[in-house]
Amino acid sequence: MNLKRPAPNVSAILHRAIALAKAGVSCGEIPIAAVLVDADGNVLAEAHNQVETAQNPIAHAEMQVLQQALQYRRYFEDCTLAVTLEPCAMCMAALCHARVGTVIFGAYDPKSGGTVNGARVPQHMHFKPDILGGIEEDSCRTLLQDFFKTLR
Amino acid sequence: MNLKRPAPNVSAILHRAIALAKAGVSCGEIPIAAVLVDADGNVLAEAHNQVETAQNPIAHAEMQVLQQALQYRRYFEDCTLAVTLEPCAMCMAALCHARVGTVIFGAYDPKSGGTVNGARVPQHMHFKPDILGGIEEDSCRTLLQDFFKTLR
Repeated sequence: MNLKRPAPNVSAILHRAIALAKAGVSCGEIPIAAVLVDADGNVLAEAHNQVETAQNPIAHAEMQVLQQALQYRRYFEDCTLAVTLEPCAMCMAALCHARVGTVIFGAYDPKSGGTVNGARVPQHMHFKPDILGGIEEDSCRTLLQDFFKTLR
Repeated sequence: MNLKRPAPNVSAILHRAIALAKAGVSCGEIPIAAVLVDADGNVLAEAHNQVETAQNPIAHAEMQVLQQALQYRRYFEDCTLAVTLEPCAMCMAALCHARVGTVIFGAYDPKSGGTVNGARVPQHMHFKPDILGGIEEDSCRTLLQDFFKTLR
């Protein structure tokens, strides 16, 4: 039985992630954030990247969101995770392990992505989420580009 | 500068992981465990798989070890992680993010491994640990085979 039920408004959820990513900059983080919603659009968990705050190289936004949500449930077939940047191999494999039904992301990441670029993790996993890339791509890419400009 | 310094006795460290994996069975876990040591062989962190105990599909042994060790340090170039089974894509990518210098594993995992099988994560990552597979392979494979026999 296919339990996947994509959330109703993927653009709105990604805009919520974009706002959260911007908030992360004031904590010294690269602006990347993720939001997990159920099939009715209720937010189950959300987080920005916390690599700098936590001095933890694996504290990516998606991992923080999963750790929060896993306190309540083990699997998320009926849920959608939205993230501003293509998940890396670690995050994508974690999302497969937790059976997140749909993963949508904004900007593609040819250098460090592991979803449709690099290791292309889903094609090797038992559970394969539905993947939608390039949603609100311009906003998500500009967010990162503007941040890195300020560092120069 | 190459900061990698493989631990002196990889077999002994893997035997420590095997003992810990066996202890995990009494908690209802599949027997998989990991040990992180520094270049002098001092144990920095160790854990068995905690997927069942924590009802958490991403609580693999390697992730538990990293979370413990990351409380004290951010990167582990001079350290060795030993694990009884080939790391999956999630764990292998996490070990790359945390720059673990050397990763040794016991049994190969053609079905769910992501290190030398499946997604072959290290070849896509910026930091690539030195990988040694098949150390104490028979003991590690038998450990899992015996466990699954008892479930039938």
